[in-house]
Amino acid sequence: MARVRPLSGFPEWLPAGRAVEAHVIGTLTRVFELHSFSGIETRAVEPLGQLLRKGETSKEVYVLRRLQDTDQTGYDDTTLGLHFDLTVPLARYVLENAGQLDFPFKRYQIQKVWRGERPQEGRFREFIQADIDVIGQGTLPFHYEVELPLVMAEALSGLGVGAFTVLVNNRKVAEGFYRGLGLADVDEVLRWIDKLDKAGPDAVREGLLAGGATGDQASACLELAGIAGEDAGSVTAAVRALAERYGAGNELLDQGLGELAALLAAAAARVPGTVRADLKIARGLDYYTGSVYETVWRGHESLGSICSGGRYDSLASDGSQTYPGVGLSIGVSRLVSRIIAEGLLAPSRTVPACVVVAVDTEDERAASDAVAARLRARGIPTDVAPTAAKYGKQIKYADKRGVPYVWFLGADGAPDQVKDIRTGEQVEASADVWTPPPADLSVSVGPGGLGQ
Amino acid sequence: MARVRPLSGFPEWLPAGRAVEAHVIGTLTRVFELHSFSGIETRAVEPLGQLLRKGETSKEVYVLRRLQDTDQTGYDDTTLGLHFDLTVPLARYVLENAGQLDFPFKRYQIQKVWRGERPQEGRFREFIQADIDVIGQGTLPFHYEVELPLVMAEALSGLGVGAFTVLVNNRKVAEGFYRGLGLADVDEVLRWIDKLDKAGPDAVREGLLAGGATGDQASACLELAGIAGEDAGSVTAAVRALAERYGAGNELLDQGLGELAALLAAAAARVPGTVRADLKIARGLDYYTGSVYETVWRGHESLGSICSGGRYDSLASDGSQTYPGVGLSIGVSRLVSRIIAEGLLAPSRTVPACVVVAVDTEDERAASDAVAARLRARGIPTDVAPTAAKYGKQIKYADKRGVPYVWFLGADGAPDQVKDIRTGEQVEASADVWTPPPADLSVSVGPGGLGQ
Repeated sequence: MARVRPLSGFPEWLPAGRAVEAHVIGTLTRVFELHSFSGIETRAVEPLGQLLRKGETSKEVYVLRRLQDTDQTGYDDTTLGLHFDLTVPLARYVLENAGQLDFPFKRYQIQKVWRGERPQEGRFREFIQADIDVIGQGTLPFHYEVELPLVMAEALSGLGVGAFTVLVNNRKVAEGFYRGLGLADVDEVLRWIDKLDKAGPDAVREGLLAGGATGDQASACLELAGIAGEDAGSVTAAVRALAERYGAGNELLDQGLGELAALLAAAAARVPGTVRADLKIARGLDYYTGSVYETVWRGHESLGSICSGGRYDSLASDGSQTYPGVGLSIGVSRLVSRIIAEGLLAPSRTVPACVVVAVDTEDERAASDAVAARLRARGIPTDVAPTAAKYGKQIKYADKRGVPYVWFLGADGAPDQVKDIRTGEQVEASADVWTPPPADLSVSVGPGGLGQ
Repeated sequence: MARVRPLSGFPEWLPAGRAVEAHVIGTLTRVFELHSFSGIETRAVEPLGQLLRKGETSKEVYVLRRLQDTDQTGYDDTTLGLHFDLTVPLARYVLENAGQLDFPFKRYQIQKVWRGERPQEGRFREFIQADIDVIGQGTLPFHYEVELPLVMAEALSGLGVGAFTVLVNNRKVAEGFYRGLGLADVDEVLRWIDKLDKAGPDAVREGLLAGGATGDQASACLELAGIAGEDAGSVTAAVRALAERYGAGNELLDQGLGELAALLAAAAARVPGTVRADLKIARGLDYYTGSVYETVWRGHESLGSICSGGRYDSLASDGSQTYPGVGLSIGVSRLVSRIIAEGLLAPSRTVPACVVVAVDTEDERAASDAVAARLRARGIPTDVAPTAAKYGKQIKYADKRGVPYVWFLGADGAPDQVKDIRTGEQVEASADVWTPPPADLSVSVGPGGLGQ
């Protein structure tokens, strides 16, 4: 078997790394379910026609071909491609099953997605996303725009890898303000503001001017983007003062500020220090219509936003009915990759077993198997030594994997014994009674575990 | 959004069906971990050169193309394809990480696989497999051939959908017997025996004769394939008698019978009535070298084998080292599809929430959110009513989803109340103390749940 090497962009983990990933997914799942989001999975493929509804992403799609189908040349709308996010599949799933879903439909979805990047770009081409969305039928109350980022903040802080800040803005604030200034092409302005962090204020200013904005209009846009803060009162006062100065006030702006203030106030009451308004948050996609979110992992700002999303008034429409929604998506693989690379979390052992049952001789293996069965019947993950080697070697088998206990069968009717190989303490035990301390029972994932 | 319709061969479930699938995956995972298999995931793609190592499967591969890469024409070994099973990826993963894995390496892997079938064939083109394998470095003790089918039997019987029979055979028995008869092309005979159930004995006999077997040789092969039973002694006696009659005895046959007897005896002691020898089990793939397994779901025999596998002496080889293994693979989607279609299992509700907190007026939503937070902090999955509608409508919101409890905030300092909407009973309660019965806390999946 020649040429076995990692494929760039397709992350894979050793068992210890996979335990970390499973811990992350398990924590997210637990929090999503505590908030009553229902789990779904969608198929990995969609017709190309669905995937290309957002023109910009077309270059990132992996298209599928049946190897033996030599008649296929070129692509049409029914060609299948791998999904590049979980939003397009959700829209299709909701339309396909609208008659059988209960609205508002709160769902979470944790799955792999694929992007057909060039290999040399060093980006993930396969990665896991964890999405939550609430979808309404016809209408969707604003309060979900407050709740969803708070669910994500709770889920992320439950990982035990430090603190996260959710940065929020509201499209109505930006759109109201730009329109109030007399700028008609709101999407164009948003696209420039979206580049602020990377390109810097001078380049953005030039771009806005080149697009037909006056110097005053460009200044106003940049000043708006500079407003940030946690306090609802201060943020809205700053925006109102700016709008007044440029004569840009209007009803849409007021509505957006009201929503932004409600979100900040609720967040300050429920999770102080977690949510912060940042009026330069634009989000590239043009379907957002209300709140927009990005999330920064404190101390890991270079990763960019690891959890983003927003409110959209029309996720999908079947002609007679529209489906507004609000949702956020965590880039799980990016997060896990950093956690593993920096050893921020690690499992307490590399295998599930809490105890390895020793084997005296191969002829007596059945007796060891029977002890293992009794332990497992009481929920204790148990392995049996692979060979009837010398006890020292069997203990080494357990030790190498981080398994804390080794079980020895009593000879000639003597009671069994169990040894804590970390301390060397060995005590008499019965497989029907012995119970390890809760901390030893299952693999725990936390700081200070085994190395990766 | 036009043309939203299911894609044949790509199964998807409503939330209730997904809860069943999650229950199946959770049960398998729990049993695999009790037996100390470590979970891994591999990337969804492999280089086409790896996927085509088994020639026969080439017609089922989905090949990937980057949509924008118009330079790509034709395929080469580095073209990427979606994996069609979890064995090829395991072989590659073991070779790639051999230096960092502990052997024997016990791993489980539950992932989607894809097969590029023609759409009209009505087969799954995307489905979930659940595999366990034990991989040795250089050697692998026989006792794992006994243990692995018993782990699968335990996992399947834990699903609560009836009983399963593991059918076992041993390649050494077949190969020894055929060679003893003087038949040189063992694989050819196995291919015919593999067709016995579908084609019938007459067609198989004709095939063997056409391949150069004598009438006696063909009869002997068919008689061997007719031997079946649970008892180690009777099965081996029947084979020995047959071998003596045809003068087909030899060392390889003896070794195979010894292994088969050991497997049957251990299974009879540990899980009586579960494992049965069936000497017509051939398994199409030619890499099996010892025990082979198929599994029948009693009462659902038409599904064919839903869990198959065997022993292979060389899963992979890097030139200096070989990696023998034994493994089985469950076709999870086939199983889940039948469970859902026949309503054999269903969830107790369609959402995770155990309780819905009612909302008096939208101005007082924060108070309901605070109660929900206190309940969730104690591990109780909780939803909050989507709107401050009349209480009757809020109760209906819970009832429609199968949520058993609705929580009402006390007005003007009065205590809160919680109502069991199944019985109508309503009692005073505090969000810091109230605990539902364990059966109500989480979604349970079993017979007699909600309809699909």
